[in-house]
Amino acid sequence: MLSKSQIKLIKSLSQKKFRNTHGLFVVEGIKGVREFLNSDFELFSIYSTGERFKVQKDLLNLIDERELKKISSLKTPQKALAVFKIPESKEIELGGIIVALDGVRDPGNLGTIIRLCDWFGIETLICSKDTADCYNPKVVQASMGSLTRVNIKYLDLKEFLVGQTEIPVLGTRLEGENVYNSILPNPAIVVLGNEANGISEEIGSLLDGKITIPQFGKVQETESLNVATATAIILSEFRRNSTTEK
Amino acid sequence: MLSKSQIKLIKSLSQKKFRNTHGLFVVEGIKGVREFLNSDFELFSIYSTGERFKVQKDLLNLIDERELKKISSLKTPQKALAVFKIPESKEIELGGIIVALDGVRDPGNLGTIIRLCDWFGIETLICSKDTADCYNPKVVQASMGSLTRVNIKYLDLKEFLVGQTEIPVLGTRLEGENVYNSILPNPAIVVLGNEANGISEEIGSLLDGKITIPQFGKVQETESLNVATATAIILSEFRRNSTTEK
Repeated sequence: MLSKSQIKLIKSLSQKKFRNTHGLFVVEGIKGVREFLNSDFELFSIYSTGERFKVQKDLLNLIDERELKKISSLKTPQKALAVFKIPESKEIELGGIIVALDGVRDPGNLGTIIRLCDWFGIETLICSKDTADCYNPKVVQASMGSLTRVNIKYLDLKEFLVGQTEIPVLGTRLEGENVYNSILPNPAIVVLGNEANGISEEIGSLLDGKITIPQFGKVQETESLNVATATAIILSEFRRNSTTEK
Repeated sequence: MLSKSQIKLIKSLSQKKFRNTHGLFVVEGIKGVREFLNSDFELFSIYSTGERFKVQKDLLNLIDERELKKISSLKTPQKALAVFKIPESKEIELGGIIVALDGVRDPGNLGTIIRLCDWFGIETLICSKDTADCYNPKVVQASMGSLTRVNIKYLDLKEFLVGQTEIPVLGTRLEGENVYNSILPNPAIVVLGNEANGISEEIGSLLDGKITIPQFGKVQETESLNVATATAIILSEFRRNSTTEK
């Protein structure tokens, strides 16, 4: 049985302020819950329509479909929902390729970018404070467990970039150099910007290099690639060298 | 003033069967409507909260926000909604890079792929009959006017691939050759598969070549890239050659 206070708590976690107050977030679906259980994330409680997880008994709540519907944020609830503790983010290790997001607002885009970081072996993702929250349910859903493998750090991006001078900072700008012809450094920090406005002026002035994905079609100049697909292409370019040089 | 029959017609166009019956689809937002007005698409009717479009008077309906809300499928209606006629799709011209989708079901993914085709100058997008409908409102929204510049053809993909022997057919498969080390032909047909199952067995057996995007992280083997981000990377690889060879 679900108590009223459990329902209230879980539903409140769809909002960032309550996630921060409680230090908790929600994962839905059997596959997703399993991935978080197999990671360093600490379980707070689990709600399942069947005995399918080996966890501490007092953390497991067997519920029925009707009850799950009450706490799920999905149109079609996925048999299990778990609440995990938001971990302290680890310190940033400067090395390899680091991705930095400057105001990416769409949870779906952030989720896709986290998944791309995971795929391309990017261990650290830096987010400006106005970037979408990575524990937003839509981000958790879209990142599909990659959230357990990428270290995500929210910070004042300007302060961070001013403070670090070891590693070159590259960003995507329309007037940048053709990414296919650029020599891409490693280590590097790669900055991607907001969906509507790209990289802010403030952050733009801190870039050591500007790159762009050239356009081949008859698209109007004002159009741009979606930030998640741009990230896919840029990370692919950074990584292709390490395989083709073999 | 909006008539009941207008409201009924426009609302029905959120469903594929009614789009096909009427041969009409909906575009929302000032920018989107402008792009379609400036294209070869034929206007059927337009609903706007202000005089902002130069169109035949009898096709323009000035309405208020409240009325727009009744016909809009968006949470926040975007000042204008237009109904356009679904055009006959043009014959496929075999040449250059052609993208073929085998059962891509998510409208957002299809929209992103259409936008990518536009960006990378891919003129023809072939879709299997079980691929999402490109006139689905979510696809129209996600493709952002690129729909006016890419020729999209729905057909029996198996029959088409069996019937054409001129152009090599490549597809993404986990066991494929590393795309970064592959010599990518041009012209070529590049096949991308369903979100959950990839390319079907049936279509897989018709491929002349298999390519894959290598994985660099510690991701489980069962994970894969989202089909839209995979398309971004594959098309980028096809196009990079033409710039780096310059």
